[in-house]
Amino acid sequence: MDLTERTLSSREIYSGKIVRLRLDEVRLPNGEIARREIIEHPGGVGILALDAEGRVPLVRQYRCAFSRVLTEIPAGKLEPGEQDPLSAARRELREEVGAEAARWDDLGTLLPSPGCYGEVLHLYLARNLTFGDRHPDPDEFLEVEYVSFHELLSRCMRDELHDAKTVAAVLKVHCLLG
Amino acid sequence: MDLTERTLSSREIYSGKIVRLRLDEVRLPNGEIARREIIEHPGGVGILALDAEGRVPLVRQYRCAFSRVLTEIPAGKLEPGEQDPLSAARRELREEVGAEAARWDDLGTLLPSPGCYGEVLHLYLARNLTFGDRHPDPDEFLEVEYVSFHELLSRCMRDELHDAKTVAAVLKVHCLLG
Repeated sequence: MDLTERTLSSREIYSGKIVRLRLDEVRLPNGEIARREIIEHPGGVGILALDAEGRVPLVRQYRCAFSRVLTEIPAGKLEPGEQDPLSAARRELREEVGAEAARWDDLGTLLPSPGCYGEVLHLYLARNLTFGDRHPDPDEFLEVEYVSFHELLSRCMRDELHDAKTVAAVLKVHCLLG
Repeated sequence: MDLTERTLSSREIYSGKIVRLRLDEVRLPNGEIARREIIEHPGGVGILALDAEGRVPLVRQYRCAFSRVLTEIPAGKLEPGEQDPLSAARRELREEVGAEAARWDDLGTLLPSPGCYGEVLHLYLARNLTFGDRHPDPDEFLEVEYVSFHELLSRCMRDELHDAKTVAAVLKVHCLLG
């Protein structure tokens, strides 16, 4: 069966600092017409950084969408026109945690919510770390805490960590490194 | 450090069939003012259903945000006012796959993209399955394929599956059941 939905028209509702919302009219496989709400996003990166003691830096940050502080691995958006997610990952790890990594492994690509949300997220495992000063963005307020990987895995499995990129990265690293 | 951002004003930009976009003005911890783009979402469920032969039903569906067909575990949105995600999970498994499960285990909560996107996703492991007819929504066109759990785990680790709820559910079930 051909599942393709053909776009008949596309209308921009909002174009902001981060997201762009558009409303598409599509022809369904049965010939009928439906509307699709699509949120475009510049894409991003998430970094699970593992230090020589088996500890992982996590970032605590207020998230307006949930009116509370969440704990997540270091992450950030791609800048306009930025093609190389690895260079974005190096930048975000440096800015948020103040760390450089000599070894980077690709943990794959995540589509956080493909039904409406166009974000593509690139995950990395960063190792062989050296630490310097943090340089967070001026409108980013965050706290860094270090948690052992073992404890991080337990928190995921006890449903104490909810951020999708964090859960996916922790469990992938567990499967990779055992 | 108090990381809280205090909402000063909130303006609705768009209220649609699935998402609502609002623009908040917030006071940052340092007293400065910033804007936050927030997409509200009704929340949803994702179901990893495991049959007696160790196979998992996956759903292939066209996703306009990426202009291609993606493979995901069965999933769906909560209906307006729906309080119980488990009843939504039972409905979506029945509608998309035509299956009922006698055993349900909670796989925890996922926030797919907490920076801007307010979706809360509830994950379940469904077992002891019986199969009947599928009843997909009239504007939902999907194909169901059955894949062994072992193959599904390999696809996750080879970066061939990208949907966040699918990756998280597969890796959590692997950690739970070994």
